[in-house]
Amino acid sequence: MKILDSVDNPQDLKKLNKGVLTDLAREIREEIINTISKNGGHLAPSLGVVDLTISIHYVFNSPHDKIIWDVGHQSYAHKIITERKSKFATIRIHGGLSGFPKISESEYDAFGVGHSSTSISAALGFAVARDLKNENYKIVTIIGDGSMTAGLAFEGLQNAGHLKKDILVILNDNEMFISQKVGAVAGYFAKLLTVGMARKFEKKVMETVSRFHSLGSSFGKFIKRVKVMLFPGMLFEEMGFTYIGPVQGHDINNLITILENLKDMSGPVLLHVITKKGKGYPPAEENPVKFHGIGKFSIKTGKIVENKTVTYTKVFSDTLINLAQSNDKIVAITAAMPEGTGLDKFAKKYPNRYFDVGIAEGHAVTFAAAMAVAGMHPVCAIYSTFMQRAIDNIIHDVALQNLPVIFALDRAGLVGEDGGTHHGSFDLSYLNYIPNIVIMAPSDENELQSMLKTALDSNSPCVIRYPKGYCTGIMLNKIPTALQIGKARVLRYGSDICFLAIGNHVETCLKAADLLMKIDINVSVVDMRFLKPLDINTVREEILIRTKKFITIEENTLIGGFGESIKAFLCNEGATVKCIGLPDEFIEHGDLGILRGKYGLTPENLIKETLKML
Amino acid sequence: MKILDSVDNPQDLKKLNKGVLTDLAREIREEIINTISKNGGHLAPSLGVVDLTISIHYVFNSPHDKIIWDVGHQSYAHKIITERKSKFATIRIHGGLSGFPKISESEYDAFGVGHSSTSISAALGFAVARDLKNENYKIVTIIGDGSMTAGLAFEGLQNAGHLKKDILVILNDNEMFISQKVGAVAGYFAKLLTVGMARKFEKKVMETVSRFHSLGSSFGKFIKRVKVMLFPGMLFEEMGFTYIGPVQGHDINNLITILENLKDMSGPVLLHVITKKGKGYPPAEENPVKFHGIGKFSIKTGKIVENKTVTYTKVFSDTLINLAQSNDKIVAITAAMPEGTGLDKFAKKYPNRYFDVGIAEGHAVTFAAAMAVAGMHPVCAIYSTFMQRAIDNIIHDVALQNLPVIFALDRAGLVGEDGGTHHGSFDLSYLNYIPNIVIMAPSDENELQSMLKTALDSNSPCVIRYPKGYCTGIMLNKIPTALQIGKARVLRYGSDICFLAIGNHVETCLKAADLLMKIDINVSVVDMRFLKPLDINTVREEILIRTKKFITIEENTLIGGFGESIKAFLCNEGATVKCIGLPDEFIEHGDLGILRGKYGLTPENLIKETLKML
Repeated sequence: MKILDSVDNPQDLKKLNKGVLTDLAREIREEIINTISKNGGHLAPSLGVVDLTISIHYVFNSPHDKIIWDVGHQSYAHKIITERKSKFATIRIHGGLSGFPKISESEYDAFGVGHSSTSISAALGFAVARDLKNENYKIVTIIGDGSMTAGLAFEGLQNAGHLKKDILVILNDNEMFISQKVGAVAGYFAKLLTVGMARKFEKKVMETVSRFHSLGSSFGKFIKRVKVMLFPGMLFEEMGFTYIGPVQGHDINNLITILENLKDMSGPVLLHVITKKGKGYPPAEENPVKFHGIGKFSIKTGKIVENKTVTYTKVFSDTLINLAQSNDKIVAITAAMPEGTGLDKFAKKYPNRYFDVGIAEGHAVTFAAAMAVAGMHPVCAIYSTFMQRAIDNIIHDVALQNLPVIFALDRAGLVGEDGGTHHGSFDLSYLNYIPNIVIMAPSDENELQSMLKTALDSNSPCVIRYPKGYCTGIMLNKIPTALQIGKARVLRYGSDICFLAIGNHVETCLKAADLLMKIDINVSVVDMRFLKPLDINTVREEILIRTKKFITIEENTLIGGFGESIKAFLCNEGATVKCIGLPDEFIEHGDLGILRGKYGLTPENLIKETLKML
Repeated sequence: MKILDSVDNPQDLKKLNKGVLTDLAREIREEIINTISKNGGHLAPSLGVVDLTISIHYVFNSPHDKIIWDVGHQSYAHKIITERKSKFATIRIHGGLSGFPKISESEYDAFGVGHSSTSISAALGFAVARDLKNENYKIVTIIGDGSMTAGLAFEGLQNAGHLKKDILVILNDNEMFISQKVGAVAGYFAKLLTVGMARKFEKKVMETVSRFHSLGSSFGKFIKRVKVMLFPGMLFEEMGFTYIGPVQGHDINNLITILENLKDMSGPVLLHVITKKGKGYPPAEENPVKFHGIGKFSIKTGKIVENKTVTYTKVFSDTLINLAQSNDKIVAITAAMPEGTGLDKFAKKYPNRYFDVGIAEGHAVTFAAAMAVAGMHPVCAIYSTFMQRAIDNIIHDVALQNLPVIFALDRAGLVGEDGGTHHGSFDLSYLNYIPNIVIMAPSDENELQSMLKTALDSNSPCVIRYPKGYCTGIMLNKIPTALQIGKARVLRYGSDICFLAIGNHVETCLKAADLLMKIDINVSVVDMRFLKPLDINTVREEILIRTKKFITIEENTLIGGFGESIKAFLCNEGATVKCIGLPDEFIEHGDLGILRGKYGLTPENLIKETLKML
């Protein structure tokens, strides 16, 4: 019988003898590896904190005490030991457990999350509320070294240091960030480690120096400052935190002892823990980047069950590299997602023209704006959902100054298993109202190529939004040709109804039109290509003379998106317009096919709506 | 003859003898005080950096060298000595000089700005581009202590520390932030000052300690670290900057010497300069908060030419204080704008329930979200334009978790003289697509009261957007009553046409309807109150039976705003809809009346459009 069989919740955990916790950790790792090999997910981050998770739940009393995960993709062990073991096999499956903490899923999830660096702000919010209500609970956050480098984390640290509330921030330093050598803070962490190692030696030195104490109080004050300096964590100490660490993050007994000691400390405390991403599964330990977020894989070999089809990410990456060869103005920027955006290849080819700024989307955009003023042509590749963090920078720094910065918005539309925090459901809406911006969405990989070329030829801020996943499979033109900005392309003419689409659902329209033709319904299909400028002329001159019935389709929320822009134009033209897109709600996680079916982003639904309208 | 008469540009300045620069500074201050007493503007910040500005332009070679102002409201002296002296009297007037640096206004303005904390990111962008292009110019940014506390500045610092490019960041520490004791970094700056004072003493100590150098290289390394510790600026040193300071910021000769020395230093350098806000004008020195951004005032007395009418800000402030008396769940949050949002009064009454988090809008919102989870009812009062910085936090932390956080968006719509970077032109569009949110806009002060009560009674994320400036002047109800969420109010019925409005332009509609009635045109007027949920039922049931002609009016960009939401609904109802609102462009600065006239937000334009339609 497994130890895990006796653990359903943290109370069960506390009943166990400390001696068996290492075995429990192994069992939990097996459970995680098994499930994620089938469901896909964030394997390496979750494996890295199994021991830490057990230790926290052994010492703290969740859900009374609040455990707040930053990003949340490392919370699998937490889920397993907080009453979700039996459902764990459903993680990331539509209708099953979420891959991230979620208030509505469990009272053990104190604060929902998916994007990085919110946890310190959240912890402080809990602490303030607790103290105002004279309640009595502990608050623990677990934040990775990468997340710690974002501006939001800094804002949280600095407000926490000021308010001096009792919170425990555990810095889960898995050296991922350090190895990528991004940002000064990474260097700082690396130094902390070295300093930690050197501590023993320095203790001896201190003994010598402390003899000077006898020299009087001023000198004593000086010595105190020297002492502070000798211990790592100055940066946090300067921010008002008590810094403790670094400590090894896989020794459960030691972690429990430390956490027991820290539990009742007052004021903001930062515990620096060193963990290894992928811990306990050799392929993941060896290649934590590959196993950070992964699809199905073979446990035995660590090999991914690969799909041979080309992704939009790859086409973007290849095209940018090709275009950069003849255009030395091109520079590429990522916010800590070199692999996800495909810029890792660009980095290898053009290391001087590549910038990973860390998890700092706002900075990425303003940094790009200035480069554009100074004569470069920057390409910011950021996921649609993460670009939500840099909207003011797009408005205030890029669009207002009308600068040629290109935004490559990967993962636009539904992203599937990562769910509500990660869907790129909003970008058409959060960009459309910004003056001076050109917004495009390719209907296939060839158009993506052309749009990148179009953006580079233009002198405006340009956005290209493209989906997660695989392309249509058409042949790529060898040399991408620029498109006429703001010009739609009529793919077929029919006088019964017109489908207007943007991006990946042009294909959906063509499929539906083919099927409808079999029952003698003739459909016009327009690949609008540009949300902005919107080609109302083509619609007026080539379509409205044929039909006044329209269906629009987009993988974006309907409010403020493509369909409503079309309606705004067609409203006074006596047309009837049905818009298909995402509803005004946060979309759950699940397989892309299931989700697209659910929200009618299918040829079948287009046909259904057509028949309703005619 | 004035010295200033001989200075049109930095080249003229360089011809002057250093000895006369203090007199020049005095003349520039007079010029600024004179003009701003008539035009209004950011007096105290600009007076504080006159000496620094002269020194920078004396040493550096703008526009070849790039001078980048953070926020930019301190750039008046810069404008005067960079070929804009003759136009300075037009500052902040429509068609005249902008109150902020602007690329399109002058080649001396290296990077446009208005919002805080972008300058380090921008400086780094320039530096990277310069080096890639093998160009050769210096880059100087001037950033205030308040701006330095924002996450974006931290992101910039950390990337700059990592890339090690040659830039000079001048931290203009005017102690504003320190006096407000907001955030750990403020405390850190205060400490830096103390440390600076103690430096002389410590030099002596160092002489003693350095004898230990003889003890060998390990101990030498230790001593080096001790040295680093003894000098202030550790936080910046840890980030990879060379820290120099603090130095007095009003001694031009000394500043010039220091800047000459720093000019050719390599790597990122931070110069810490201490200035006094309002320097040279006693009323502003004594009350820098009042004179930060100010309207017309009497130079002699320092008294503001006051308008007795009540502002929306005041009604918000008073109402919140009243409601907080009987509801101890209410907490109020500002991002460094206590006076501007009216929360300064709340702070006095309920100091424990008031939080100024510094210039950290993202943190403000996430912090509020967690407080809401923990049982409080937070009210975040942030200007519409600054909330652009926290959109992801609204989406990811508040709306996705459907938490009762109230967003009081002051300065929604046009703000007048601050111009393009500050207009609240976008909030209806950047909020409307977010699920779960209730969005309201009051048509008068009574409705503002009611909406705050409505938001507090609800259990949803609620936004109330209200304009800069004065209310309608109606009597306030003693006790605010909650509204029915999502319910419009038909103000008058007429069958020729219907005006649909939200917020302050309901009044515009009523005025136009009155005038139209005189020529026998009968207008329905609906105060929609809520953009979301949008009351399509009332429009359908009470208006569509009377007329199918509609005009909408809103002080927001038309794209994705109120009018397009109405169109999206009315599109399939055979209605004709004309939308009045802000065009798809960045709106220049100028008097509110002029701007509203220009963009047709007037009864006259409503009448004109009505006559066109009928």
